Amino acid sequence: MTYSVAVSGASGYAGGEILRLLAAHPDVEIRTVTAHSTAGQPLVQHQPHLRSLAHLTIQETTPEILAGHDIVFLALPHGQSGQYTDSLGGTPLVIDAGADHRLVSETEWDRFYSGPFHEPWTYGVPELPVGTGKQRENLIGATRIAAPGCNASTVSLSMAPGVSAGVIDPAGIVSVLAVGPSGAGKSLKTKLLASEILGSANPYAVGGTHRHIPEIRQALIAAGAPDPRISFTPVLVPMARGILATSSAPIAPGVSDADLRAAWEDAYNGEAFVQLLPEGQFPRTADVIGANTALIGLAIDRDAGRVVVVAAVDNLVKGTAGAAIQSMNIALGLPEDRALSMNGVAP
Amino acid sequence: MTYSVAVSGASGYAGGEILRLLAAHPDVEIRTVTAHSTAGQPLVQHQPHLRSLAHLTIQETTPEILAGHDIVFLALPHGQSGQYTDSLGGTPLVIDAGADHRLVSETEWDRFYSGPFHEPWTYGVPELPVGTGKQRENLIGATRIAAPGCNASTVSLSMAPGVSAGVIDPAGIVSVLAVGPSGAGKSLKTKLLASEILGSANPYAVGGTHRHIPEIRQALIAAGAPDPRISFTPVLVPMARGILATSSAPIAPGVSDADLRAAWEDAYNGEAFVQLLPEGQFPRTADVIGANTALIGLAIDRDAGRVVVVAAVDNLVKGTAGAAIQSMNIALGLPEDRALSMNGVAP
Amino acid sequence: MTYSVAVSGASGYAGGEILRLLAAHPDVEIRTVTAHSTAGQPLVQHQPHLRSLAHLTIQETTPEILAGHDIVFLALPHGQSGQYTDSLGGTPLVIDAGADHRLVSETEWDRFYSGPFHEPWTYGVPELPVGTGKQRENLIGATRIAAPGCNASTVSLSMAPGVSAGVIDPAGIVSVLAVGPSGAGKSLKTKLLASEILGSANPYAVGGTHRHIPEIRQALIAAGAPDPRISFTPVLVPMARGILATSSAPIAPGVSDADLRAAWEDAYNGEAFVQLLPEGQFPRTADVIGANTALIGLAIDRDAGRVVVVAAVDNLVKGTAGAAIQSMNIALGLPEDRALSMNGVAP
Amino acid sequence: MTYSVAVSGASGYAGGEILRLLAAHPDVEIRTVTAHSTAGQPLVQHQPHLRSLAHLTIQETTPEILAGHDIVFLALPHGQSGQYTDSLGGTPLVIDAGADHRLVSETEWDRFYSGPFHEPWTYGVPELPVGTGKQRENLIGATRIAAPGCNASTVSLSMAPGVSAGVIDPAGIVSVLAVGPSGAGKSLKTKLLASEILGSANPYAVGGTHRHIPEIRQALIAAGAPDPRISFTPVLVPMARGILATSSAPIAPGVSDADLRAAWEDAYNGEAFVQLLPEGQFPRTADVIGANTALIGLAIDRDAGRVVVVAAVDNLVKGTAGAAIQSMNIALGLPEDRALSMNGVAP
Repeated sequence: MTYSVAVSGASGYAGGEILRLLAAHPDVEIRTVTAHSTAGQPLVQHQPHLRSLAHLTIQETTPEILAGHDIVFLALPHGQSGQYTDSLGGTPLVIDAGADHRLVSETEWDRFYSGPFHEPWTYGVPELPVGTGKQRENLIGATRIAAPGCNASTVSLSMAPGVSAGVIDPAGIVSVLAVGPSGAGKSLKTKLLASEILGSANPYAVGGTHRHIPEIRQALIAAGAPDPRISFTPVLVPMARGILATSSAPIAPGVSDADLRAAWEDAYNGEAFVQLLPEGQFPRTADVIGANTALIGLAIDRDAGRVVVVAAVDNLVKGTAGAAIQSMNIALGLPEDRALSMNGVAP
Repeated sequence: MTYSVAVSGASGYAGGEILRLLAAHPDVEIRTVTAHSTAGQPLVQHQPHLRSLAHLTIQETTPEILAGHDIVFLALPHGQSGQYTDSLGGTPLVIDAGADHRLVSETEWDRFYSGPFHEPWTYGVPELPVGTGKQRENLIGATRIAAPGCNASTVSLSMAPGVSAGVIDPAGIVSVLAVGPSGAGKSLKTKLLASEILGSANPYAVGGTHRHIPEIRQALIAAGAPDPRISFTPVLVPMARGILATSSAPIAPGVSDADLRAAWEDAYNGEAFVQLLPEGQFPRTADVIGANTALIGLAIDRDAGRVVVVAAVDNLVKGTAGAAIQSMNIALGLPEDRALSMNGVAP
Repeated sequence: MTYSVAVSGASGYAGGEILRLLAAHPDVEIRTVTAHSTAGQPLVQHQPHLRSLAHLTIQETTPEILAGHDIVFLALPHGQSGQYTDSLGGTPLVIDAGADHRLVSETEWDRFYSGPFHEPWTYGVPELPVGTGKQRENLIGATRIAAPGCNASTVSLSMAPGVSAGVIDPAGIVSVLAVGPSGAGKSLKTKLLASEILGSANPYAVGGTHRHIPEIRQALIAAGAPDPRISFTPVLVPMARGILATSSAPIAPGVSDADLRAAWEDAYNGEAFVQLLPEGQFPRTADVIGANTALIGLAIDRDAGRVVVVAAVDNLVKGTAGAAIQSMNIALGLPEDRALSMNGVAP
Repeated sequence: MTYSVAVSGASGYAGGEILRLLAAHPDVEIRTVTAHSTAGQPLVQHQPHLRSLAHLTIQETTPEILAGHDIVFLALPHGQSGQYTDSLGGTPLVIDAGADHRLVSETEWDRFYSGPFHEPWTYGVPELPVGTGKQRENLIGATRIAAPGCNASTVSLSMAPGVSAGVIDPAGIVSVLAVGPSGAGKSLKTKLLASEILGSANPYAVGGTHRHIPEIRQALIAAGAPDPRISFTPVLVPMARGILATSSAPIAPGVSDADLRAAWEDAYNGEAFVQLLPEGQFPRTADVIGANTALIGLAIDRDAGRVVVVAAVDNLVKGTAGAAIQSMNIALGLPEDRALSMNGVAP
């Protein structure tokens, strides 16, 4: 069967990437695209790279317009999904690319976000170790899915294997991320202007204030650490897309190099979209642009007493839209990799 | 008086930056520029931005040609300075921008570098806390100066105040650096091609193998930590110049926020070229391009139990050539800031 | 049926892009990848973004290894294809991404290239106006195809409609192109280093010396201009991929705005991969990255007396590998757009 | 004496660059900085690279606050300078970096700009050929100076020598410019976001609509062409600063190569800040970043019948702020190069 789909937030970066991937998906028909300030305009005016969708006109984002589809994607700013959720009760599958349905803890929500708390939905990172299994199992047949925060899933995938295998100290995690500005959306802010970003590395949310921190903590708790502590610093760098997360943690006492490496090998053995590179190899973001692949390199630094995990992800694909569609494929019983590429576009 | 100067390695990036700064220095005359493969060619062919030096021709780097100047700058690949040192015995001031004379430990040299060990020279980071004083004092009247490694001095300046004040645990330092490719020099390597760097973040020397690690350890030992441990990961990002180092360390037990911040404030109070930004502010590399300024922002993350220090430096100026000339000014008794700008070129 | 394929030059940028596209092509099996200096190494070591081809090992480029496939792609430096051509006599389809078989004029070859002249093959730009038809017709059933030069096909597609309709003066064409460095290949040249390209616009081959000029002239002659004259200047800019060609020509006397625009509309009406944008719209290279699409915008400047045509192309896709595979599809009777995307990867 | 200076528009890019240059000028004291929306805030909050001016607070831009200085710089959006001009009657020297006082023709003003026409001031491009002399002579003792448009002065300097020497056909000029986004100012527009600019070349104002066209025409008329015609296309590329203008024109009948080259050699012989490169050499924008230098390369293409002139300029220095201060130096009788560097900051 062909599923009818509506995508809200269609003029933004996340919405655009959902559309780019869906446009090549043989099992869906993109019937409706919606947004607010751009409603009434051709989609291609705001997504000029989506030539195959040149026939679509952006409609207003309203519950009525979104209703009546088999699948609805919400790619809205944080705090806006909730208002549509209730009226989408009859929609078989809703996938939220925003943060509204990610956190299980209302306390954490209140601390890092504003506005009302919403019930958590099934988290859309299939490969994430959860207890002795994987998050994939929870996604089978899911009807409400929360796509991950891009930085959060990158760091969670980097550290969860070590946590679940008990080979690292989850109280001493440090992550520093080089990130492209598309993760911040199409917002008109001075600090996102090209003149500000070109030729410069720009830290933000320094000191434990970034909203993806509770999401990482939640994932690591699910992986088996009761109280993980993470120092998390994102740095905007001059590349449109991509996250390169360098995460490290103290090696747990008595753990051998072989056991360390085995934790990650076991976690991702057989995974198409989360791949551990051979020893001594580390990924670049260039290797995953446009792809749904997270590439991971691992080094053991006995001088520092830490394991260092470098992960490369396309924030708009594996970090957001690809995760959403991979989760959709699983939920619907389709081949998990449908419309998702393992290969990046490089150079 | 006017000092006569020779600069070796004149066709490379470090040599070029030394020349750019010296060209505006009223107390020196650039008499000789030397290199190897480019000898015989006009300097401006290899440094087309140095229009005021269009009259200079590159000569062969030999002891004879370098001898007879008041000041000699060596901007050569690691391991090459030593061969000239002996024959420059009569030169009043020699400044090495390479690594040959930086390390005091032959063991560390042998572990991270190759070739013969050379005696350590006075280290060219004036603001670095050393015991209860500053490295500046050692530079007064110095005749042999080792300019720092760019990443090393950036991290050392970031962490030394916390070490010397005893407010951090120096065994748990983690530094991740976004760095521009000019730090790697004008080497013809595939990984340094524009097509490889553009749009990509590229980690290298992951897992404790980078040569600047012993140099940082040495500086932190001088600052008062007997056995510092540092996890150090550089990431090449698409900006020609600049280092943004995000360094963090566990807060020592019982240290208050005020005491933490005071450690850095006291260390750099009154310094023109190493400035601690007000609380809540963090630097971008754009703010220091072309300047001899290191800008530092500090955050205290009690959730993670760590102090986070973000430092921005132009690798070619404060990281190399500016440090060399600032040290030269001190050694010669000239005003320390002569020919050095506090202001960056932005955007 | 499934066609067996060999790709030479597999460790370069053009070869890599051919492989990226073929990896998603349902009718081919990539059986053999070859190169010279990288032979014996895993393909993924040199093309780390091609995860789905991680099983392939690079073999030596020899006539023997290339022989015995249904299709052979040659992605070699100019002048190297010829030596394999003879021994590939039994290969049903050979596609050369190099220049060796593009030019019909031995005089032009001798003037712009070196080495022996080779016979011209069918030119792989299906949409190009040729006389009263299109180049597509010549590609049906072709067995030897010369993929175009990326800059050449971009400019030829920009100007040929005006030439064939007789609405411009082909003696006054001026083209200036912003191009990414991947078009220059993975060559180790100082001017292609990231430090040289980042933050800079770099002209090259100024004054009529670029090798794509005779290829453009040849295409415009085929479109109906006996003696076209073109001023052609490429400028390297800091983007890995992409060509933005701004071409203009004097408007022929007495031609109306409507007739001008109609020339391009008629030429590309119904074409999937060469699209004329609506009046007042102009393309960005971001819109076509990863896509096989050439987007064209047209403006009429009566003050200057010129029509201005701006074309955006991904040099590695529509400019090279996509053109090769689109031509292959046509030659084999497959759907022309198989494995080729109309949509770009943006931002 | 020390001149007291006020700079309006101090939080923008042009204002920031004027301040960067003035901060190193020994003959001026920056007494007042003004702006609108940022009034009341520290200057360094909006210009974090100007560390030496950290003591300044932005004041409101009003006639009263600007009055009473020896020199006032206006770096305001087009159409806003006029309101301050009248009340600055007592100010000895006013320099407008905006367009309000550039054009001599009210007709051209009305066609390309909006709002009331203002009287033309002395044009701030000293090296520009005017009749048989240079614009420099008009600047001596000037009290009201209009700094040039950055694209306009770059193209005017490129073509004026050929016009004044009568060696080109001024009716067939074509200029295509690769420009950095800082020329568009710190405006919050989607098309200026980093995500839109990174990795992309973006044409704008295609087809003869750019406001710098009448300014170029005016300069070429002053150089001796009664009715110059120019096709002008700017292309935004991913570099914060810089203009690379590729301009060409038909060679006038019977003009020899030697005469062609001599036109530019004679025009700029002895000029420090506009330099013609030796034959076969062409400039990159990297060579002039931070410098007040315009570098020009010239090629003669007899096949195309055109002379091609490539000019590199830092839009914020020689294109705006440097031109303003160079003009100020001339007007005040100071050394013309005071506080202006001939050397760029590269790489």
